[in-house]
Amino acid sequence: MANGAQALMKTLVDAGVEACFTNPGTSEMHFVAALDSEPKMRAILALFEGVATGAADGYARMADKPAATLLHLGCGLGNGLANLHNARKGKVPVVNIVGDHATYHVKYDAQLQSDIETVARNVSPGFVRTSKSTEALCQDAVDAITAAKGLPGQVATLILPADVSWGDGGQPCALPPQTSPAIADDATIQTVADAVRTGKKTALLLGGRALREPSLRAAAKLAAHNGIKLFAETFPTRIERGAGLPAVERIAYLAELATLQLSEYENLILVDTKPPVSFFAYPGKKSYLVPESCNVNTLATPEQDAAASLNKLADALGAADTEPKLQASARPGRPRGKLTAEKVCKALGHLMPEHSIIVDESITSGLMLNALTAGCPRHDILTLTGGAIGQGLPNAVGAAVACPDRPVYALVGDGTAMYTIQALWTMARENLNVTTIIFNNASYSILNIELDRVGAESAGAKAKSQLDISSPVTHYAQLAQSMGVHGVRVQSTEELLKAMEYAQSMPGPHLIEAVVPESLNGVKRKVLPWLLRTLPSLPRSVSTTLKKKIAP
Amino acid sequence: MANGAQALMKTLVDAGVEACFTNPGTSEMHFVAALDSEPKMRAILALFEGVATGAADGYARMADKPAATLLHLGCGLGNGLANLHNARKGKVPVVNIVGDHATYHVKYDAQLQSDIETVARNVSPGFVRTSKSTEALCQDAVDAITAAKGLPGQVATLILPADVSWGDGGQPCALPPQTSPAIADDATIQTVADAVRTGKKTALLLGGRALREPSLRAAAKLAAHNGIKLFAETFPTRIERGAGLPAVERIAYLAELATLQLSEYENLILVDTKPPVSFFAYPGKKSYLVPESCNVNTLATPEQDAAASLNKLADALGAADTEPKLQASARPGRPRGKLTAEKVCKALGHLMPEHSIIVDESITSGLMLNALTAGCPRHDILTLTGGAIGQGLPNAVGAAVACPDRPVYALVGDGTAMYTIQALWTMARENLNVTTIIFNNASYSILNIELDRVGAESAGAKAKSQLDISSPVTHYAQLAQSMGVHGVRVQSTEELLKAMEYAQSMPGPHLIEAVVPESLNGVKRKVLPWLLRTLPSLPRSVSTTLKKKIAP
Repeated sequence: MANGAQALMKTLVDAGVEACFTNPGTSEMHFVAALDSEPKMRAILALFEGVATGAADGYARMADKPAATLLHLGCGLGNGLANLHNARKGKVPVVNIVGDHATYHVKYDAQLQSDIETVARNVSPGFVRTSKSTEALCQDAVDAITAAKGLPGQVATLILPADVSWGDGGQPCALPPQTSPAIADDATIQTVADAVRTGKKTALLLGGRALREPSLRAAAKLAAHNGIKLFAETFPTRIERGAGLPAVERIAYLAELATLQLSEYENLILVDTKPPVSFFAYPGKKSYLVPESCNVNTLATPEQDAAASLNKLADALGAADTEPKLQASARPGRPRGKLTAEKVCKALGHLMPEHSIIVDESITSGLMLNALTAGCPRHDILTLTGGAIGQGLPNAVGAAVACPDRPVYALVGDGTAMYTIQALWTMARENLNVTTIIFNNASYSILNIELDRVGAESAGAKAKSQLDISSPVTHYAQLAQSMGVHGVRVQSTEELLKAMEYAQSMPGPHLIEAVVPESLNGVKRKVLPWLLRTLPSLPRSVSTTLKKKIAP
Repeated sequence: MANGAQALMKTLVDAGVEACFTNPGTSEMHFVAALDSEPKMRAILALFEGVATGAADGYARMADKPAATLLHLGCGLGNGLANLHNARKGKVPVVNIVGDHATYHVKYDAQLQSDIETVARNVSPGFVRTSKSTEALCQDAVDAITAAKGLPGQVATLILPADVSWGDGGQPCALPPQTSPAIADDATIQTVADAVRTGKKTALLLGGRALREPSLRAAAKLAAHNGIKLFAETFPTRIERGAGLPAVERIAYLAELATLQLSEYENLILVDTKPPVSFFAYPGKKSYLVPESCNVNTLATPEQDAAASLNKLADALGAADTEPKLQASARPGRPRGKLTAEKVCKALGHLMPEHSIIVDESITSGLMLNALTAGCPRHDILTLTGGAIGQGLPNAVGAAVACPDRPVYALVGDGTAMYTIQALWTMARENLNVTTIIFNNASYSILNIELDRVGAESAGAKAKSQLDISSPVTHYAQLAQSMGVHGVRVQSTEELLKAMEYAQSMPGPHLIEAVVPESLNGVKRKVLPWLLRTLPSLPRSVSTTLKKKIAP
């Protein structure tokens, strides 16, 4: 007869949950022991929980099904919280299995006792459950998986007391048939179509699953037929792009630029996203970035089928047979000269193979990435959906586990890399095809901008030292080597290209530490003009306004 | 006129909060900018929030007053949760300042928006408050500091919206006079004294602040006068010990051994602690470790003055003028031969200077530490109070900031070290006098024991691989060097001694990676006899029972 853990393992595997990112402790030992009872379950050990949760996020973004995490009580969940936050904001399905003390042990308030459900609610508002008995466990698991997988995807947390896990009488359960998501109803189609037909300047803002090929193609028909502009949300969970797919312009991170991007639109149609708001609030600046005069309609919510809704709208507007405009093939040339963050992006655009997966947590260093890879062979980009840094390396682990035949590039800032640096060890252990590029500018560069932007101009020495991580400078190549990952430090563009070509030729993980100057210094004079280059399609009138605004 | 952040900074400093362990983001930029307005505030940057919170914990254990942390919204708090849990369990005062979005920005549910108060309640059940206005901010801060500092110490969380921080009209507030903690009342003294007078076999179990010198001396008078045994709780927040102080025996981690230690006592008197329970539950084993026939009385709760209560009891029992028995001076000899974890502890006992601070997170490797340092010059040991691993390195950072003139040793297992390895960078940046010793046995050694203990004996290859961190082996010396810390890898006892002597001769941080075999393999045959050596005072009758029990 199966114990709880063994029945749970079978339930998970039968429901298609075949990867578990783990950082177990004593209370999870029966779950660990049950791993061998299910050959289909792959267990990937992490040395820190934030790696496990970020990997589960990255896995699900690419596999389109949830992985499980295995975490050790409330503190393990706490360590994994930041990357679960990113998954929540990206509407990514994740099933957390959080071990807990045996039910009868809770009252003794032993060292690791804490209120796990409370912590879990922060990232799993839709599903937190402590399994009460071995008999109930597998149905609880099925409910958790169902909650995680349903649209919009979410993080579900199942708390597993040790005695529920070790108890006898576990009965595996099967997942019920999944229902298909709804399509936008006729009234919504009518409203949106009418708005388009007014002839007013219209943009579609695509988010979530609407940034995958089926939705992109449908949206591109509308763009071609009705002159609608296509925008993508600022931080896509996963965007499919490259030569042969429709191109969409991402809304900028800086509110000042996003406002400009949106300034001329009178109609905004939302698909699986919300109206753009600024990432942070700034004194005296607006949080809501859509022009007040702009008419906003939602075509499809995150609960709905974005592609089918877009196709239904295309039908209504007579765009069904329109040829969408597709991105032409175009790689940047081989970069030369002094190494900069931009050259790193250019080198990636120059070299990256088809079907690459780019995990982009490069913050300021990767601002040219989109422009420089737009015409590359088809690829996916995964981004920092929830703003909780430390997502890049773990996401790359998960993406590589989900797609072992695809090259994964993790572009990571030096500040962000350190939050979940332990991911390198898992890359080495699992021999994952991940090439990590660390932009080492020895600074929390984004904060130097933000310090200005929030109006705290008169920063003194102590304040500035809080944004300066140059003393000591971290040597990432050496750090990678210490965890078994091939690491090189490059200081010239030639060295970078050589290292990237070497990484392409050798399976397994690589880390390239690119020593680059800060991309952005002194926001007022340099950043805005520089960023303008990242938005090639900005309306000319806007460019003119902007140029006046930023003139010295 | 001061803005909120500036007034807050003055309030903190005036209340004696003079260290802030930081990992800020945009929403904290005004707090960061205000650092320069208060020369007394020292800001210590961490590359990961778990380092900041663990450092605040270690600081307060040694400084006996709280430090502040500066954390970035709910995700930053999440990353810091595990070490705040350790602080909570250790009753250590910490004041968290958690930045949040501007109050008017919350409704837009921007990327980093999450329910911060919910997360905070896990570690700050006694004080969580979101400051509502710049005018209210400093009183909120005073309330947080008061809550943190009052006995028992606790973690207080003050959530600081960006607009409350940048708003004008901040008015610094002063801390009200602190009240003295209560002393055990006459009835309690009477009850406890009566229990002692029965002549039954009696033990005092000391925890929390009762492990500092004043309480230890009072307890030792009772021990000498009334034949009372002195026990310390398993994981002391801070224990003062060494030659010239009374010695106390710590309750063992393994429930089997703790049960043996307590087996002969008929009276148990608690001072600033709870009755011992097992760390985890195990199938078929008891959680509550005190014999059922034992009479348990509480002399002083964590809210009360432990030393004064013990002295009052000593008065009642006529022990006030008794000479307490003190630990004799005795260092172990210079170790020789094959390097083992025990030899590392012996080397430390042989070499460590007076007033050393030992942060012990060595898990299985440090089991002989107490025995081998008992007669060393006076020192303090800080331990893993809440069981959330990743406490050692950050605690050492905080202890070194609090006590710049005292050598700090962090003894850390290779598994635990990786949770907050970023602490090394802060040690280098601040040039802290911390010598870290990593016991590299390439295993989650404790889990190999626990896998057996929970009854999951039939572990297969996948299960065992979850406890094996030998592929790849992490090179900690190299890892330390990558973050600017002098690191050496030692494989012999001679090399170890040389490295320790070098570290003593050179200020600043050092890391010694000691390559050791697993201390414990195969619990049934070896561990219990081995552990018996850690409990020199175990009653002979118990030893005999035990020897029979574990005979092959």
